[in-house]
Amino acid sequence: MLVRVRGGEVSVDEALQKLRDLPFEDIGLACIDHHRSLRRGLAEVIYGEGKEVDDILAIMERMLARGDNIMVTRLSKEKAEPIRAKFPPSIYYAKSRVLTLLQNEPVIRGRGTILVISAGTSDIPVAEEAAVTASFMGNRVETVHDLGVSGLHRVLSHRDRLTAASVIIVVAGMEGALPSVVGGLVDKPVIAVPTSIGYGASFEGMAALLGMLNSCASGVTVVNIDNGFGAGYAASLINRGCDES
Amino acid sequence: MLVRVRGGEVSVDEALQKLRDLPFEDIGLACIDHHRSLRRGLAEVIYGEGKEVDDILAIMERMLARGDNIMVTRLSKEKAEPIRAKFPPSIYYAKSRVLTLLQNEPVIRGRGTILVISAGTSDIPVAEEAAVTASFMGNRVETVHDLGVSGLHRVLSHRDRLTAASVIIVVAGMEGALPSVVGGLVDKPVIAVPTSIGYGASFEGMAALLGMLNSCASGVTVVNIDNGFGAGYAASLINRGCDES
Amino acid sequence: MLVRVRGGEVSVDEALQKLRDLPFEDIGLACIDHHRSLRRGLAEVIYGEGKEVDDILAIMERMLARGDNIMVTRLSKEKAEPIRAKFPPSIYYAKSRVLTLLQNEPVIRGRGTILVISAGTSDIPVAEEAAVTASFMGNRVETVHDLGVSGLHRVLSHRDRLTAASVIIVVAGMEGALPSVVGGLVDKPVIAVPTSIGYGASFEGMAALLGMLNSCASGVTVVNIDNGFGAGYAASLINRGCDES
Amino acid sequence: MLVRVRGGEVSVDEALQKLRDLPFEDIGLACIDHHRSLRRGLAEVIYGEGKEVDDILAIMERMLARGDNIMVTRLSKEKAEPIRAKFPPSIYYAKSRVLTLLQNEPVIRGRGTILVISAGTSDIPVAEEAAVTASFMGNRVETVHDLGVSGLHRVLSHRDRLTAASVIIVVAGMEGALPSVVGGLVDKPVIAVPTSIGYGASFEGMAALLGMLNSCASGVTVVNIDNGFGAGYAASLINRGCDES
Amino acid sequence: MLVRVRGGEVSVDEALQKLRDLPFEDIGLACIDHHRSLRRGLAEVIYGEGKEVDDILAIMERMLARGDNIMVTRLSKEKAEPIRAKFPPSIYYAKSRVLTLLQNEPVIRGRGTILVISAGTSDIPVAEEAAVTASFMGNRVETVHDLGVSGLHRVLSHRDRLTAASVIIVVAGMEGALPSVVGGLVDKPVIAVPTSIGYGASFEGMAALLGMLNSCASGVTVVNIDNGFGAGYAASLINRGCDES
Amino acid sequence: MLVRVRGGEVSVDEALQKLRDLPFEDIGLACIDHHRSLRRGLAEVIYGEGKEVDDILAIMERMLARGDNIMVTRLSKEKAEPIRAKFPPSIYYAKSRVLTLLQNEPVIRGRGTILVISAGTSDIPVAEEAAVTASFMGNRVETVHDLGVSGLHRVLSHRDRLTAASVIIVVAGMEGALPSVVGGLVDKPVIAVPTSIGYGASFEGMAALLGMLNSCASGVTVVNIDNGFGAGYAASLINRGCDES
Amino acid sequence: MLVRVRGGEVSVDEALQKLRDLPFEDIGLACIDHHRSLRRGLAEVIYGEGKEVDDILAIMERMLARGDNIMVTRLSKEKAEPIRAKFPPSIYYAKSRVLTLLQNEPVIRGRGTILVISAGTSDIPVAEEAAVTASFMGNRVETVHDLGVSGLHRVLSHRDRLTAASVIIVVAGMEGALPSVVGGLVDKPVIAVPTSIGYGASFEGMAALLGMLNSCASGVTVVNIDNGFGAGYAASLINRGCDES
Amino acid sequence: MLVRVRGGEVSVDEALQKLRDLPFEDIGLACIDHHRSLRRGLAEVIYGEGKEVDDILAIMERMLARGDNIMVTRLSKEKAEPIRAKFPPSIYYAKSRVLTLLQNEPVIRGRGTILVISAGTSDIPVAEEAAVTASFMGNRVETVHDLGVSGLHRVLSHRDRLTAASVIIVVAGMEGALPSVVGGLVDKPVIAVPTSIGYGASFEGMAALLGMLNSCASGVTVVNIDNGFGAGYAASLINRGCDES
Repeated sequence: MLVRVRGGEVSVDEALQKLRDLPFEDIGLACIDHHRSLRRGLAEVIYGEGKEVDDILAIMERMLARGDNIMVTRLSKEKAEPIRAKFPPSIYYAKSRVLTLLQNEPVIRGRGTILVISAGTSDIPVAEEAAVTASFMGNRVETVHDLGVSGLHRVLSHRDRLTAASVIIVVAGMEGALPSVVGGLVDKPVIAVPTSIGYGASFEGMAALLGMLNSCASGVTVVNIDNGFGAGYAASLINRGCDES
Repeated sequence: MLVRVRGGEVSVDEALQKLRDLPFEDIGLACIDHHRSLRRGLAEVIYGEGKEVDDILAIMERMLARGDNIMVTRLSKEKAEPIRAKFPPSIYYAKSRVLTLLQNEPVIRGRGTILVISAGTSDIPVAEEAAVTASFMGNRVETVHDLGVSGLHRVLSHRDRLTAASVIIVVAGMEGALPSVVGGLVDKPVIAVPTSIGYGASFEGMAALLGMLNSCASGVTVVNIDNGFGAGYAASLINRGCDES
Repeated sequence: MLVRVRGGEVSVDEALQKLRDLPFEDIGLACIDHHRSLRRGLAEVIYGEGKEVDDILAIMERMLARGDNIMVTRLSKEKAEPIRAKFPPSIYYAKSRVLTLLQNEPVIRGRGTILVISAGTSDIPVAEEAAVTASFMGNRVETVHDLGVSGLHRVLSHRDRLTAASVIIVVAGMEGALPSVVGGLVDKPVIAVPTSIGYGASFEGMAALLGMLNSCASGVTVVNIDNGFGAGYAASLINRGCDES
Repeated sequence: MLVRVRGGEVSVDEALQKLRDLPFEDIGLACIDHHRSLRRGLAEVIYGEGKEVDDILAIMERMLARGDNIMVTRLSKEKAEPIRAKFPPSIYYAKSRVLTLLQNEPVIRGRGTILVISAGTSDIPVAEEAAVTASFMGNRVETVHDLGVSGLHRVLSHRDRLTAASVIIVVAGMEGALPSVVGGLVDKPVIAVPTSIGYGASFEGMAALLGMLNSCASGVTVVNIDNGFGAGYAASLINRGCDES
Repeated sequence: MLVRVRGGEVSVDEALQKLRDLPFEDIGLACIDHHRSLRRGLAEVIYGEGKEVDDILAIMERMLARGDNIMVTRLSKEKAEPIRAKFPPSIYYAKSRVLTLLQNEPVIRGRGTILVISAGTSDIPVAEEAAVTASFMGNRVETVHDLGVSGLHRVLSHRDRLTAASVIIVVAGMEGALPSVVGGLVDKPVIAVPTSIGYGASFEGMAALLGMLNSCASGVTVVNIDNGFGAGYAASLINRGCDES
Repeated sequence: MLVRVRGGEVSVDEALQKLRDLPFEDIGLACIDHHRSLRRGLAEVIYGEGKEVDDILAIMERMLARGDNIMVTRLSKEKAEPIRAKFPPSIYYAKSRVLTLLQNEPVIRGRGTILVISAGTSDIPVAEEAAVTASFMGNRVETVHDLGVSGLHRVLSHRDRLTAASVIIVVAGMEGALPSVVGGLVDKPVIAVPTSIGYGASFEGMAALLGMLNSCASGVTVVNIDNGFGAGYAASLINRGCDES
Repeated sequence: MLVRVRGGEVSVDEALQKLRDLPFEDIGLACIDHHRSLRRGLAEVIYGEGKEVDDILAIMERMLARGDNIMVTRLSKEKAEPIRAKFPPSIYYAKSRVLTLLQNEPVIRGRGTILVISAGTSDIPVAEEAAVTASFMGNRVETVHDLGVSGLHRVLSHRDRLTAASVIIVVAGMEGALPSVVGGLVDKPVIAVPTSIGYGASFEGMAALLGMLNSCASGVTVVNIDNGFGAGYAASLINRGCDES
Repeated sequence: MLVRVRGGEVSVDEALQKLRDLPFEDIGLACIDHHRSLRRGLAEVIYGEGKEVDDILAIMERMLARGDNIMVTRLSKEKAEPIRAKFPPSIYYAKSRVLTLLQNEPVIRGRGTILVISAGTSDIPVAEEAAVTASFMGNRVETVHDLGVSGLHRVLSHRDRLTAASVIIVVAGMEGALPSVVGGLVDKPVIAVPTSIGYGASFEGMAALLGMLNSCASGVTVVNIDNGFGAGYAASLINRGCDES
């Protein structure tokens, strides 16, 4: 653009105007950033909670017109149904309440495998959100469920997979001790996801969150309670490596 | 007493009066309960924090006169010195700030061994308080220090001792995950003691406390942050068994 | 196994493989640990909250095939009905939402009696969970309800039972003072269970939990809010004594 | 005043001015309210914390000139010394850090006796603040120290005094259960004062405060942590009765 | 009783037994204390929350048989209907969810008037609970609603009533500042009741509770959030005066 | 009035009486302050939550009779319907749950424009409440939605509007960082409104609230979580300027 | 700049470079923004806490060279001394720990007067920080100290000043009720500053902060605990009005 | 080992024994894990807080004997001095309180550059801890200080370095908004480190921690408050890539 200003093709005022307005297109609901799928290596992700079905459909149509892949998170079953009816190729993951609609098969861009571990069966929905996100972003993903820390031999029996992964996502509620155990066994980046599973003094995930933040195993970082999406996203950036990102 | 009322040796009014006043003897500082060493199987324990040296000495002299063993907890080094000077046979444990003065060797009343485990070197003071308390109350006690959960093989290498103990006290700060790991390995009562070791989101032991309360390993019970004494005391009651208590 | 390696009957690789894989059997839902009923002295306990009826039934069938006794906790009435229909000998405790299915009468392994006390009628569901758990694990259990601390003579009138028990579980909401009172009367291990009963500044059991952790009566240990199961389990381990566990 | 306006002795404007300015006299430090000792039945109380000695002396001199009795709370020993040197008849209570200076003997205005109870020796400073305040305001005051709830017979042995009092102030730290026990024994207004005594999960009095607010004994009201003054003041208002206040 | 022991009419063992068992009568639900209406000057109050209608009816019938007046608190409209159908003379206060059933007109035992003030219309249910309780216990009660602190002249316009009352109950949510204002105007015992009215950073009454505990107006004491009953009960004890209680 | 006292037209007693009673008119529900629309420059605002429809209608009729404009906040759709049926000219804003009824067009009294910004689409209801309030009080209002801080160029593209506004209201949930960014770009008063949008460690707006209070951009002040009304009101006072208020 | 690009005087690359680098000048300590005094209408303010004296002096010298006025906040007495020795015209406000160094008399840019009110003498340091900041930024400032809410007539006696101010800053600790009272009396923007003054359940200003956020008086906004500077800064922006800012 | 068992060279019992004891060597202070520098790619790191100088020296000597590089964190200046005196080649970083002693130059194993950003000068100590850790572990490290979010152009001026880095560590106190801004600009893994810098409602880093956990910028993960070491360690694992770890 500055080159065209130099050449006199574009006036200074026009240039200023364009620099400001270019990347936005207002559809009355939310600003959709056209540059985003390029810049961030990801089609726009729609946070479904609190949005009406019609709003979601409007955003999706715009994105489809541009050829993007689409992921909607925190989408209730009730809202998913009319969307699935309208876009039959879409897939709805009921446990994690994620919907994806792929126009193009995601290219595998990650160098290694992302391993998603959950401590208990109740943690599976959050783990699934992490796994679907990482797949959507072009990674090989493996999952192991119900690896509670109170049964150590269960953890140890999966040591090979722990060693083979390039990033490990550990999803756990209650006391949130599993990331410490995993982080003590391997030398890999571990992303800990506390869940709101538990009762009483778990304070809806607070206990797990604090436990993970205080992990005595170095190399563990933490995301928000129940934030499987964030963990999958961060793991994807890590897995991509410095040359590609 | 009621027998003597029946026999007419004691008037009803006198009886009422005695029932009320008997067990107390006021020395102007605090009520010392004469019946206590019998009733609770323990000489009185003096909580040293916030008490003046002179007050502590006054209480100790009374107790010595009755032949009791004495333990003082949370006693600063400054306060311990004049007490040790006055009662040379007393022992001061500097890390845990406990002082004991034994007039009689404690009889071993516990059936098994109480094992005290600490997660890190910084947790040793609290672990020592638990161990000294349990010894003072007549138990065989073993200790293993620095058994952090992030090095699982360290924990597993002590499995024999874990299995041999009758009660296990686990002392840990930071994320407080060690009791879950220990509780998952053995079928013994585990008393978890959170410590205030840590920083930031450990909130002075809160994270460890919540972690332990939410332990997914059944059989774990918890005492207050840094309460080594309470853990040692409870372990002693458990070790004694139902016939003796 | 190592003996068979020595004898050459089993190759080193096979041995390594077996050591790793033996104790697990994956049924697509959750890892069921075959060794568990032996190792921990208890049939597997199923945490019912968040599990679908079909999942619970699948786990139960596997366990029945192995001859285990089964206990399901936190099972809503709606989920309990189809399970009871399928396994008529099962018993559903409506207040505590526990279901048990016994193939073998539990052998009494505890040496003494476990006494379960509740402070108010609203605390009974949690107390029942503790009592059913302790019974299921092979203990003699007694219960006394509605022993609020503000009516001291109510507490004192049960002193005989307090003295006769080998472990006492005290269940209380609101200010959670009852364990302190009980712990001051007897020289027995006391397991305090805070409940979420109360309103306002009880903060769903927080006030009771803090009160119990700060109990000035030594010998009191604490479990999570509303965790009747954990209290019953820990009491059972304590009651078993060191020779049997 | 309005009468004098009516009579024309005072102009309307003057009247408005006087109504506004009368009760204040500015000495550059703080507004001292001349009407206060009459209106509230108490000489001004000076909150010593954070005030310089010179400021306190300046306020005291003004008050002495008007013939008031004076009480200074939260006054450190260092600040108390120069004040005592200047006003030798003043009395300094070292534990509670209260200083009083009486120009007139307080008239006993309360109808009954205010009983101040403390749970442990560490709670005595706060109890003393309550007792000194109540005395200063013209009440008969009795104190009993070290009445911990874990030794119930200690409490019961003082039942006569509990019954004879017209208001009871109960001072307790740690789990703060004593007010519930006392409130369950007698039918008197009980003012509970949590103290910051304790450690770990006492959270500097939070546990005691929550315990007291959730007391299952009706008739218990609560003041701020360590607020002996407020308890003594409120008890004094209650003791005065409706005809005198 | 001791007299009869003395006379030999009752054996020592029998006496011991009776002393223990006398005051209780077990109906399988909750211990009803026969001595209570005498000892505490109040018929038993039933806490309705979490109790089944049948349980409440059973307790009520027992109490009616003894001639007691009855009050049930926290009783939902659904539970109140069958109770009202069975006992038509009972009165149900819908806002405060209190039901009373009077067999005898309460004797006015309080010396003065209890004034109940609420800060906003949303606080009225809690204020009504306080007022009904105080009336039930035999006091003259007045109420003023919607006296918010942000409209000071509203407060000042009721100064006469404030001055005439013997105890003042102030019910307020949100920032809970009204008790400070009232306590600064009069020299009467003020009982502050925080309510859970508010949103956001009111944290369900926490803000009001903390504000009241930190009130700079001396003479203010506090009860639990939404605890209108406790405030009415405490005010009643205060109003009774020392000679009658 | 004092002038009439002076002239003898009004007796002193009458004057006192009138001074006290004048500004109130009791309709049995809540005190409506007749002077308010004059004194505060606003018709009374009715807080709809917790009030019955009939009560709201009664208050509205009184206010209409006096010619006031009316605004009802936190009014559910269910309650809005009968009110709209009765007063057809009223407008109901469904997202923010605000209803207005204008008898007179609000005079524009604000000197500049109030700009209302929301960080995400989920924050729009709170932003709308702020915008409607500011309009109702006589201000020019502009709104920009979905200006999340993680897309900085979105923020920068609106720099002109930020610079042109006289007060800026920034509505944001989650981490609440937008006010810091806006406050760093312009030299205008910024009112930050945290919303309860988020999950997990957002603790229902707590994270956003704390973030805004700790904003490193000077000139930012904060209102309660979700308090769009309060932000609109405060912005209106600021916009009015010192000569008019 | 773009004009010069157009004219060919500056190459496109140079332009890009300059746009990026222009506004910064690195002195190895912290980025000082040359444009800031123009853009924000204020010389740079230095946050003194945690900075070494030498660092502060280095920053000050740079700023002096540019002709700016300087304000340093949170500067301890120990650090202030060498600074005052080096720059004798500087003024150190000991209570609020603020140092100012004026090279040019601040031009009065605010249209009205900013009134700073403190609730108690202990709140004066924070109030002084607010007042010094507002003066430094070119405003007329008045202060009234010790206006506690529990003495309402004290507040009312200053009504004239409240009415005359264009912005009011209210500084209060403990229960923080004063802003509600002030906000109910006048129709001006009120900025509430909670202070950490108090003890026990004031939780170092938390109670005051929550009280102010929940203020039922509309028009009140809040800044961080003890943030006198922020309040003074925001009040200054408000006072400036829309035409000048 | 199993091979040697097979060959009969080692008895089964010996094998079991060795498997258990091999990796430990007890020096009476803490278990030092000989295998650790191999297994984790790092010499042992000593957590200096709470350890005596003599203990630290003893551990260091053992490690030196094995040829390890050594890093000691949270080491006070007082403790650092005797250590530096004994090992002159060691380097002490005074701001971050880290000491390193390198026997071998760290091999650069990371593929890209780790960029460490701090929001304010007060955050530098934590940022330095992160940078020193990352260097010690064999990475290229760059640092940029004082990049506060309220001055957006400061952030934007460093966009090149942000884009060039392979991992970005963002250190910020107060409201902790900087990671959101950085995460919105680049597509790299961002590790957010909250610091305890701030006052009042920053609650010693809590506000920054919550802000970062709720970051609306995906790809941000979080470590404990002030945990520069943990961030440096995790960044190092990420930078290493999947082939080397």
